[in-house]
Amino acid sequence: MKVLNCPEEMRAWSDAQRGRHKTIGFVPTMGALHAGHLSLAEAAVRENDTAVASIFVNPTQFAPHEDFNRYPRPFEADMAKLEGVGVEAVYAPSPAGMYPEEYSTYVIVEQVSEGLCGGSRPHFFRGVATVVTKLFNAVKPHRAYFGQKDAQQCAVIKRMARDLDMGIEIVEMPIVREPDGLAMSSRNVYLTEEDRKRALCLSRSLFEAEARLRDGEHDADSIVRGVRDGMAGVEIDYVALVDAETMRPVREITGPILLAVAAQLPTARLIDNIKFDPKGTNA
Amino acid sequence: MKVLNCPEEMRAWSDAQRGRHKTIGFVPTMGALHAGHLSLAEAAVRENDTAVASIFVNPTQFAPHEDFNRYPRPFEADMAKLEGVGVEAVYAPSPAGMYPEEYSTYVIVEQVSEGLCGGSRPHFFRGVATVVTKLFNAVKPHRAYFGQKDAQQCAVIKRMARDLDMGIEIVEMPIVREPDGLAMSSRNVYLTEEDRKRALCLSRSLFEAEARLRDGEHDADSIVRGVRDGMAGVEIDYVALVDAETMRPVREITGPILLAVAAQLPTARLIDNIKFDPKGTNA
Repeated sequence: MKVLNCPEEMRAWSDAQRGRHKTIGFVPTMGALHAGHLSLAEAAVRENDTAVASIFVNPTQFAPHEDFNRYPRPFEADMAKLEGVGVEAVYAPSPAGMYPEEYSTYVIVEQVSEGLCGGSRPHFFRGVATVVTKLFNAVKPHRAYFGQKDAQQCAVIKRMARDLDMGIEIVEMPIVREPDGLAMSSRNVYLTEEDRKRALCLSRSLFEAEARLRDGEHDADSIVRGVRDGMAGVEIDYVALVDAETMRPVREITGPILLAVAAQLPTARLIDNIKFDPKGTNA
Repeated sequence: MKVLNCPEEMRAWSDAQRGRHKTIGFVPTMGALHAGHLSLAEAAVRENDTAVASIFVNPTQFAPHEDFNRYPRPFEADMAKLEGVGVEAVYAPSPAGMYPEEYSTYVIVEQVSEGLCGGSRPHFFRGVATVVTKLFNAVKPHRAYFGQKDAQQCAVIKRMARDLDMGIEIVEMPIVREPDGLAMSSRNVYLTEEDRKRALCLSRSLFEAEARLRDGEHDADSIVRGVRDGMAGVEIDYVALVDAETMRPVREITGPILLAVAAQLPTARLIDNIKFDPKGTNA
C-alpha cells in the first residue's frame, strides 16, 4: 500500500491512475477506524478501479475546548485495516503541510450547515468543507464515500460538490451499529462503562420514533417530543427533524426527512440519526 | 474552436485533453476582450499544449448598485479574437447553470483580500474566489493566466490556489497600456472624452512615483502623498502602498511592493498599479 504525505505526491499518484484511465474511489477519515469506516472503504474498492483513504485529524474542525489533542491516532492499526480491505493508497498529510504560514482560505456552505451540529459547533462545517476541498484537490477522486452517521456533513459536502462544480459523486453509506444499536464512532472509546449504557438511549429513542413514523405519524413535534422523552437520562444538545437535503426544520412529514440527535455525555459528545421517507423505503 | 456551455461538457473536454497527456492553459475572462486579455491568451497558447478561455460575467462579484447589467457583452467579437490567437476552447456557462437554486457555497480568502478593492467592494473577492474555483474545477487547467492590472485579485488567487492545494500554476502577466499610458480595461468604453483625459492622472502619477522609487525613495507616506497630489483632479477611492504578496501596508520600502490606486470617475471606476522591488528589476 502506497503512503503519500503531501499534496504534490498524492496528486502525482492520482494523475498516474487517471492517465491509465482508472477510476478513483476516496474515503476521507480522521483515522481511529471502525467497521463504519471500513464499510466505506469496501464500497470504494468495490465501485472503482482503485481506492484511496486519507488519515488526517483536521485541527480546523475542532474548537479550542474540544478533543483535538486526545483524539485517538492508532496509525499502524489503521493502515493494516485499510490494506486488509484492498485500499491501494493512503494520503496522510501533516498539519503543517495542510495549514502553512499565512493560511487564509476557507470554504463556507451557508444554509445547509446552519442548525444541528452547525449550531453547537459554529466553526465545524467551515473546517470540514475546507479540508474536504483540499483533500479532493489532492486526491482527485471520481467518487467519495461518507457515512450517514454524519448526516449533516453529508448534506454539506453534497451541496458543496454540486455548487463548486467539483465533478465528484458523493456516496452516502448507511450507519454501522454495535449489536446493541449504538452507532459506531471513534469517540466511543472515550465512554466509561456507565456512559456506554446511557448512550443506548440515543439509538433506542430513534428506533422508537422510526416505528411511529412507519405507523404513519406525520407530526414532527410529536416525534421530537417522543425522542426527547426517551433521552431524558442524558444532556441533550439537540433533537431535530429536518428536510433530508436542505436541513430545514419540518413540521408536517410529507417527504424525506432526517431525524438527528446529539447529546453531551460526561465522557463524550455523541450523535446519531435515522432517515425516513413516507413515500418510500427508509433510506 | 469548441464552445462548452456547462461544467460537465467543459470537464469532458478537459479530461479528454488530459487523457492525451496535453497540458491545459486557462484564461478566465468576463469577455469584452482587449489587448490585455489577448496577451494572457497568447501566453496560455504559447506555454501549454492547448488553451481554454472562459467568458462569464459573474453576477456575484458585482454589488447591486454596480454595472452588472450594462457590462459590455460583445460575444461574437470576443470569439473571433480568441480564435485569432489560437485558443482551442471557450467555456461560456450561463448564470443559471453557475448559480442554481439554493446555491450556498463560497470561497473566502481572508487577510490578502482585505483593504484596497476589498475595502471598497466588500463582496467582490468572495465572488471572484468562488467563481474562479468553479471555473478551475470545470476547466482543470495546469496553468491559469491573470493580469497584473487586477493585482490584488492575482494575490488572492495565488493564495487561494496554494491554500486549497489546487495544483494549478498561477501566472501573472504585465499590464497592457494604451499609447498614452492608460491601463487597458473593458470599462474604458464607459468613459466620456472628458473622463478619458482625466483618467490619465492615474498612470501618470504612478509613473512619477516609479521614477522616485527608482531614485531610492523608501518612505511609503511620501510616495503615497505624491500620488494623491497627482490625482487631485479625480475622486480617489484609495492610494495604497502594500507588500506585493500579503497586501499588508508598508511604511519603509525594503522589499517587493505594490503601489495601487482606484478612482471613481463620473462615468467609470478605474484601477491601476505598479510593482517595484528595490532589490531587483521592476517586476
